[in-house]
Amino acid sequence: MQSTNIITLTTDFGLTDPFVGQMKGMLLSRNPEVRIIDLCHGIPAHDILTGAMTIHTSYDYFPSGSFHLVVVDPGVGSQRKILVVAADNHIFIAPDNGLLTLILQECANPVIHRVDNPSLLPSKISGTFHGRDIMAPVAAALAGGMPLDQVGPTENISSCVHIELPEPIISKAGIEGRVTNVDHFGNIRANITSGDLSKSLFQIVCFNGIRIKKHQINCISNTYSDVPPGSLVALFDSSGYLEISVNQGDAARKTGCRIGDPVYVLMESDNIA
Amino acid sequence: MQSTNIITLTTDFGLTDPFVGQMKGMLLSRNPEVRIIDLCHGIPAHDILTGAMTIHTSYDYFPSGSFHLVVVDPGVGSQRKILVVAADNHIFIAPDNGLLTLILQECANPVIHRVDNPSLLPSKISGTFHGRDIMAPVAAALAGGMPLDQVGPTENISSCVHIELPEPIISKAGIEGRVTNVDHFGNIRANITSGDLSKSLFQIVCFNGIRIKKHQINCISNTYSDVPPGSLVALFDSSGYLEISVNQGDAARKTGCRIGDPVYVLMESDNIA
Amino acid sequence: MQSTNIITLTTDFGLTDPFVGQMKGMLLSRNPEVRIIDLCHGIPAHDILTGAMTIHTSYDYFPSGSFHLVVVDPGVGSQRKILVVAADNHIFIAPDNGLLTLILQECANPVIHRVDNPSLLPSKISGTFHGRDIMAPVAAALAGGMPLDQVGPTENISSCVHIELPEPIISKAGIEGRVTNVDHFGNIRANITSGDLSKSLFQIVCFNGIRIKKHQINCISNTYSDVPPGSLVALFDSSGYLEISVNQGDAARKTGCRIGDPVYVLMESDNIA
Repeated sequence: MQSTNIITLTTDFGLTDPFVGQMKGMLLSRNPEVRIIDLCHGIPAHDILTGAMTIHTSYDYFPSGSFHLVVVDPGVGSQRKILVVAADNHIFIAPDNGLLTLILQECANPVIHRVDNPSLLPSKISGTFHGRDIMAPVAAALAGGMPLDQVGPTENISSCVHIELPEPIISKAGIEGRVTNVDHFGNIRANITSGDLSKSLFQIVCFNGIRIKKHQINCISNTYSDVPPGSLVALFDSSGYLEISVNQGDAARKTGCRIGDPVYVLMESDNIA
Repeated sequence: MQSTNIITLTTDFGLTDPFVGQMKGMLLSRNPEVRIIDLCHGIPAHDILTGAMTIHTSYDYFPSGSFHLVVVDPGVGSQRKILVVAADNHIFIAPDNGLLTLILQECANPVIHRVDNPSLLPSKISGTFHGRDIMAPVAAALAGGMPLDQVGPTENISSCVHIELPEPIISKAGIEGRVTNVDHFGNIRANITSGDLSKSLFQIVCFNGIRIKKHQINCISNTYSDVPPGSLVALFDSSGYLEISVNQGDAARKTGCRIGDPVYVLMESDNIA
Repeated sequence: MQSTNIITLTTDFGLTDPFVGQMKGMLLSRNPEVRIIDLCHGIPAHDILTGAMTIHTSYDYFPSGSFHLVVVDPGVGSQRKILVVAADNHIFIAPDNGLLTLILQECANPVIHRVDNPSLLPSKISGTFHGRDIMAPVAAALAGGMPLDQVGPTENISSCVHIELPEPIISKAGIEGRVTNVDHFGNIRANITSGDLSKSLFQIVCFNGIRIKKHQINCISNTYSDVPPGSLVALFDSSGYLEISVNQGDAARKTGCRIGDPVYVLMESDNIA
């Protein structure tokens, strides 16, 4: 794999504190040639599931050979491992807490190393900021061309932490998912993919609408403007997940929907053979 | 025009989601040489007027030959066009919804193309994220040196969407404007320029103060510290608009003023010839 | 000193407005070679103390020879000076309002210049945005290799503005500090360093706990996970200050603590010789 000098950052640090800035400083001090790109610093604090979904739906937009530093690290300073994973021509650096669950499960043949090479690290390592003091120096060295096996020994995928991903429940009545994300525009994302619909026992022709809170949406559209401004619309979002939106409006506000609330894809059971 | 490899981003995406990051990934995947600069991601959702004013007051600080990707796109996925505009030695890429109204109206001889070249675009285009899937690839190609006419056919300025800009009302009693923006510091911007004052029928010598809500400000200052800390001050801001501020304070909080509220420049009618 | 082309930005501008973007445009227009890194734009509006602590705890993560533009500037447009300070192999550009107090006091032999060279500046300088119109052009010129003495005459450290830094009170009963910062995670920082503990008259063996609001914490830990999830923990943070946290939680919410509240390090006076 030809690597780039691009390092993306995905964290739950927010942007009000200098944490992201200090991590960038460490990267540049270790390797002045790196190009640092903010992927997202708005992961909710300690929310590993959202971090896992964010890096999984986003990494592929970057050039092959990019490095992705993913830091949602509630166990910082504990004995949890730090992983470097090469998969699908990208390299991921993250704590071993499930952040890379989707990368490990959905990319073919990931190569996994555990960080265990003190010579890569600064002399002083804080107990509360391993993104800056361990992961950034490792990423900077890798982006400088250091071979993966210098990071530390390999790990088996089965010895890595995997988080449970919320799966929709498929039954005769349809699909019951739940809200996994509400974005800046108030768009509601459910853990239901177009694949779930086609995988279901039912044919798409039997589709009988979406129910969320007290609202029913009768069809799946292609884009927001398929409905009048202010109306609810269901579609598959730019990452392939079912999204409930309001054309030019805020669906979370209109429906009162929050993360964890149920979303139903209804099926017309009379039509089932 | 000598072009740069600088692409600025102005959006209503906010920074809590990975949308901006995915757009940067697409730009770098298409052209690893681009330099991406965040101009502003804090345009209120779907607020085309604020987007239009932001790019118009900001583009000129960047080097000639910069590319400006401006994405406030409530009509994404509909039949609205996507425009590439060369004006004043800068290149703008934006949906045709009025975002470029001020660029088209105030720059001399803009050259306008409509995006209509599928060979520039990825094979999979989402119905909800044309900033990433259409505008970014076009910007990346242009920043790589592709001639403007490869984008698609030219458009007439009259066939582009123009939004109505809120104009102040000039009368014998003075100028009635309205609040168009409240910034992070609580500074209040009105749609009144220094040009409006000099264009008015009245001489500046007849100026009789500013009124906003229940507050009267008797003079136009040069800077915040012309008044004591905590006091209201009126001045022309760094973009040429009338600004009501509080020295070392928050004018929006002090006055209770919001976007859309009236702002009056009072004239002393007795002095009119 | 070998300088880099890296310019970091630390401001109280926030990210909702185009102010940071316009400053980046000015930097690039003056020197297309600069590499701009956002250190932090979340300093509370007009909060010079937080700005001073932020740049002091962060600059050293960047490569030697980096330039640091620090703009918290409530006195913009007044007669306050603008300083360029070379210290500890870094260069700082900031208004003379105390923002660089810690840099001036804690770095050996700072070299200080006052900006006073109109030939470096654009023809039009606003009265409300000297970060963009004065400090950015100066930083861009310095990052392009301009010698420091071209900026303007030298200044004595005693003629610069120094802010009063909140010092903890050390007595027989222990140390009384106060909360200086609450970060994005709800971690509480006090103005007490590990040095203060060892400097105190008391031996660390006499340490008798931390008190904050109604809560008592009995020991100083190394990392969050030294206590169970949801429990309060005290440690020295990644910048050396006493931090009160909740493992995987929000200490500010749990304690109701705010900036300015007292934090006590208790000593067991019976043991004093």
